[in-house]
Amino acid sequence: MSPIGHEVRRLALRMIGTILTALVLLVVIGPVPAARALDIRTLTSPQGIPFWLVQVSELPVVTVDFAFAGGTRIEPAAKAGAATLASGLLVEGAGDMDGPAFQDALAARAVEFSTGVDRDAFSGSFRSLATEAEEAAKLVGLALAAPRFHADDIERDRRQLLVSLARSAENPQAIASRSLLAGLFPTDSYGRDTDGTRETVAALTREDLVAYVSRQFTRNRLTLGVVGDITPEAAGRVVDLAFAGLPAGDSRPKTDPVSPSFFGETVVDRPIPQTIITFALPGILRSDPDWFPAFVMNHILGGGTFTARLFREVRETRGLAYSVGTTLYPLDRAGLLYGYAATRNDRARETVQVIRDQIARFAEEGPTEAELAGAKKYLTGSFPLSLDGSGAVAGLLVTMQIHNLPPGYLDDRSSLIEAVTAEDVKRVAKRLLDTDKLSVVMVGQPADGAGSAAPAAARVSEDGARSTSPNSIQ
Amino acid sequence: MSPIGHEVRRLALRMIGTILTALVLLVVIGPVPAARALDIRTLTSPQGIPFWLVQVSELPVVTVDFAFAGGTRIEPAAKAGAATLASGLLVEGAGDMDGPAFQDALAARAVEFSTGVDRDAFSGSFRSLATEAEEAAKLVGLALAAPRFHADDIERDRRQLLVSLARSAENPQAIASRSLLAGLFPTDSYGRDTDGTRETVAALTREDLVAYVSRQFTRNRLTLGVVGDITPEAAGRVVDLAFAGLPAGDSRPKTDPVSPSFFGETVVDRPIPQTIITFALPGILRSDPDWFPAFVMNHILGGGTFTARLFREVRETRGLAYSVGTTLYPLDRAGLLYGYAATRNDRARETVQVIRDQIARFAEEGPTEAELAGAKKYLTGSFPLSLDGSGAVAGLLVTMQIHNLPPGYLDDRSSLIEAVTAEDVKRVAKRLLDTDKLSVVMVGQPADGAGSAAPAAARVSEDGARSTSPNSIQ
Repeated sequence: MSPIGHEVRRLALRMIGTILTALVLLVVIGPVPAARALDIRTLTSPQGIPFWLVQVSELPVVTVDFAFAGGTRIEPAAKAGAATLASGLLVEGAGDMDGPAFQDALAARAVEFSTGVDRDAFSGSFRSLATEAEEAAKLVGLALAAPRFHADDIERDRRQLLVSLARSAENPQAIASRSLLAGLFPTDSYGRDTDGTRETVAALTREDLVAYVSRQFTRNRLTLGVVGDITPEAAGRVVDLAFAGLPAGDSRPKTDPVSPSFFGETVVDRPIPQTIITFALPGILRSDPDWFPAFVMNHILGGGTFTARLFREVRETRGLAYSVGTTLYPLDRAGLLYGYAATRNDRARETVQVIRDQIARFAEEGPTEAELAGAKKYLTGSFPLSLDGSGAVAGLLVTMQIHNLPPGYLDDRSSLIEAVTAEDVKRVAKRLLDTDKLSVVMVGQPADGAGSAAPAAARVSEDGARSTSPNSIQ
Repeated sequence: MSPIGHEVRRLALRMIGTILTALVLLVVIGPVPAARALDIRTLTSPQGIPFWLVQVSELPVVTVDFAFAGGTRIEPAAKAGAATLASGLLVEGAGDMDGPAFQDALAARAVEFSTGVDRDAFSGSFRSLATEAEEAAKLVGLALAAPRFHADDIERDRRQLLVSLARSAENPQAIASRSLLAGLFPTDSYGRDTDGTRETVAALTREDLVAYVSRQFTRNRLTLGVVGDITPEAAGRVVDLAFAGLPAGDSRPKTDPVSPSFFGETVVDRPIPQTIITFALPGILRSDPDWFPAFVMNHILGGGTFTARLFREVRETRGLAYSVGTTLYPLDRAGLLYGYAATRNDRARETVQVIRDQIARFAEEGPTEAELAGAKKYLTGSFPLSLDGSGAVAGLLVTMQIHNLPPGYLDDRSSLIEAVTAEDVKRVAKRLLDTDKLSVVMVGQPADGAGSAAPAAARVSEDGARSTSPNSIQ
């Protein structure tokens, strides 16, 4: 990595707080001021594929964002990592083009094409000059319908994924995140690392990759957002060139909710000076009628980076942690209120206790009027800032459809937030902020200092051998 | 960090390749197709501060990007880290507002405000709704003119920076980048880590921070780009509210070129399975008349991610490395052609040899006509994709001014690239691609396999104790 790369990387890490906020905003969806609301058109391509379009003409560029419902959720446990490996291999050749030929074809048209995998979807994006949009779509269509998956490429990418897994196994943040989700979802795909394990990745075959993409890349799983300098007719052609060649597939996968197993406290012993803390409480599904009260509640508790109660109490008042915060994490089949903090080992248990106390206090007292007003002002006022760029808008179009929100919803977002009352927030706080269900992972060597009221946690040296504390709630 | 955060982080890391490309494009500057070139206005505020403005009205948002020439270049060596520490503390209070009061004021207006430091500048950006732009500017102006630097905040941020430095000391990519620059610039500020060292950061005082910002935040060092839904008059008021309160300061710091000291090969021994490789050759200043031939040359050699010679020869043909590439790194006072690769320990020396051979071959033979045509097509066609969003455009306005490019330059970029001939590229390749000046750092445990023609390198266990190989060129 170059020095620029290194600086970019550090910048990227520093931006994560901002990105988290933006993600939550995107997940929630909202309007620009009504006078300039996005003009969303809901269309169907000539071959019958539905898509949403926002026409903008400031740049001669077209962006297409797509998501196939599934992701690691449709991987068999023994094949974990197939989605990630397949994603990386999509630029390594398609149809009768090998990797270099495919990459030359993308470069000759200056096409950007990227894909990624999460716990609920395989997502991607392609961008090009408007004049090249149809050629770009043909190449993407070929990559999705006929990926090459050559043995040499599989081996090279597998080796790199194994290196990445080995690094991740030593990364405190990754351990903390992985251990928390593994504890919350011990038998569900949500509890697995999206990159798989060293064992499953080592065993993946070409057939596994083919099986995954055959199941994943179907029209019935597809959601599409198109943004740019393109007419509805041309956009329909682009959509068909990229996606009409895919099979219809089964109907959408069921999304029966899964209940997290709250487990108390776990310590993963690592010889590092800081303790990385992750924690979770029950959250709510995006479709829950209490979504907006919960969203406002989270902002006041831990979502509003510098202004949240946890930040003020943990960092500003007590100087305990450099970073602390929470976010609503609405998976398709489960909701979490997810939190994190980083602090010195000798203050880790005190930090957890303060977090616990603040959660209990919020459940008991609810928000102040000033907090409620501030949260509403911020959550409505900051939304337009998150819509800068056609990539952001294309992502929004996909997210809205995944959450079954109508296009007109954008006009209502501000009033839905404004309508949240202190009683609403208090009600949802009582429902969600139950410290008996607080699950905590600490990675590091948290000292058992005096003054900590936290129960003694099981101390384990491997997250694989994690056990739970006596007061854990399953 | 939340699971979202973790996934965002991985995405961010995967995007670095893309970002690197985008950075190079931004540094080079170029046009959207002439029909829709950016309408750049060069203006002066009522208080006499020059700024560039692009009015766009699709979102009711205003973005202001700024850069103060200097950065870590104006830190005394004994005070390294002062700029980074000061940057982080700017949101911790200003004027008579403490941290929480200042952060409440930003949040109440939904203002995004971020800053960062590199080897040539202290940079920042603030964004808000257009209706809040003047209030946002007042807050930023207060942070720049009267940062609080409270003792408690300094200590907390210092601790966190020390933790970050400790992690960076064990991060192979960071070691490789740091060691290369330290070797190239052993006595210049460019050779120092922008975060300072554990010793200098531990010793920084409030007075050091005040001294740094007093020297750094002056109008004579300032470059400004404003983008958004705002008139020239209102933009002038915003500029004055943020920056007119600063002293004029000395004239701009001199930018006498500094010559990198090319040093041969260095191995930093680390018990990891992969070897991280960084390397450098002479580059050129952005003001060099051969900039565009060098830019095209770099794209063909290693800049064009999937299509570059190094990628094809190192990765596709030989399967040696997962990633390999080069970038032009135009510092204000020096130019580098900077490269990186990651490979298995037992293939590291072979990888370096292939890189060396490809560099020598390019210097000897120059580009093929097909490579030249492909590079021109990509470098002109991809540029509009990099201008998506007002943040990208605001950054472009600042970069253009730093490089002394006129606004009309955007109209000429494509033709400047198209005008590059094979002879131009060959000439600049002969000038720059001198393998006697190739400096290489390997972090890991590169095996001394047979078949490597690379000279034996000094093996050291600490980058601090690095020595150079017998054939190093100082």
